[in-house]
Amino acid sequence: MLGNSYANQNCSAARALELVGERWSLLIIRDSLFRGITQFGSFQKSLGIATNILASRLEGFVANGLMEYQVSHELTDQRHYVPTAKAIALKHVIMALTEWGEEWVPDRKGPIYFAHRDCGTRISLAATCTKCGVLPSNLDIVTRPKKVSRTKLAG
Amino acid sequence: MLGNSYANQNCSAARALELVGERWSLLIIRDSLFRGITQFGSFQKSLGIATNILASRLEGFVANGLMEYQVSHELTDQRHYVPTAKAIALKHVIMALTEWGEEWVPDRKGPIYFAHRDCGTRISLAATCTKCGVLPSNLDIVTRPKKVSRTKLAG
Repeated sequence: MLGNSYANQNCSAARALELVGERWSLLIIRDSLFRGITQFGSFQKSLGIATNILASRLEGFVANGLMEYQVSHELTDQRHYVPTAKAIALKHVIMALTEWGEEWVPDRKGPIYFAHRDCGTRISLAATCTKCGVLPSNLDIVTRPKKVSRTKLAG
Repeated sequence: MLGNSYANQNCSAARALELVGERWSLLIIRDSLFRGITQFGSFQKSLGIATNILASRLEGFVANGLMEYQVSHELTDQRHYVPTAKAIALKHVIMALTEWGEEWVPDRKGPIYFAHRDCGTRISLAATCTKCGVLPSNLDIVTRPKKVSRTKLAG
């Protein structure tokens, strides 16, 4: 998708944005995951974007393993774009964006909430500290390097 | 930022992407929130992007309340871009993207993990159902309409 544009960024968020960071990508994924849309025409109607851009995004998703083609009727070649587990795993990204938009762009709140399918209870993202048993505030969420090299430990 | 490009999308995720969905935006926010970068030159060095694009993004963040200017020395006009609470609230978005990249683009994992500042314990995002006490799988996270209109209920 974004090719090697973020190639110098040693960062998994940048890796993610290489695949889903282009314009409209995450809204196409949203339609796929939460609105059950699978057909080109339905995506186009939902999003109102140029067909060449939509085609490019969908083909990119297929090329990168986020969607798979399924053909419902061979004669009509009715093609469906079905999300893979790789795409379905983006639900937390969509949720995080939605929750932020709900809180910080409150004049134009969206019409949905996220729910547990089994019981309908509203769910939201949280990052709990399993050691302290608390929900760290955003200020208390930090990054740490994964490893300290043995050389540094020895030195 | 993206202006009214997503204006027809009645969706808080689209609202969020209007402010942080342009190329490089979320990586600038990442540098601001997790690497403590505040100065134009430091962002430029970290990201390696064109100065006009970086300037446009930073000015957009200030215009949209995501960052504030602070001047450290009036004589040298050393300008700092400091994230507001609105930007700091994007940590879940950065985390969600990073966690997805870690899992699904595993050949190029990033060098950091997210931790609770107080104790250093690794933390990750989760969406718990408070009623059922379970972590719904991604397949079991769905959207529901916020309200059923009274007319429909009456009808």
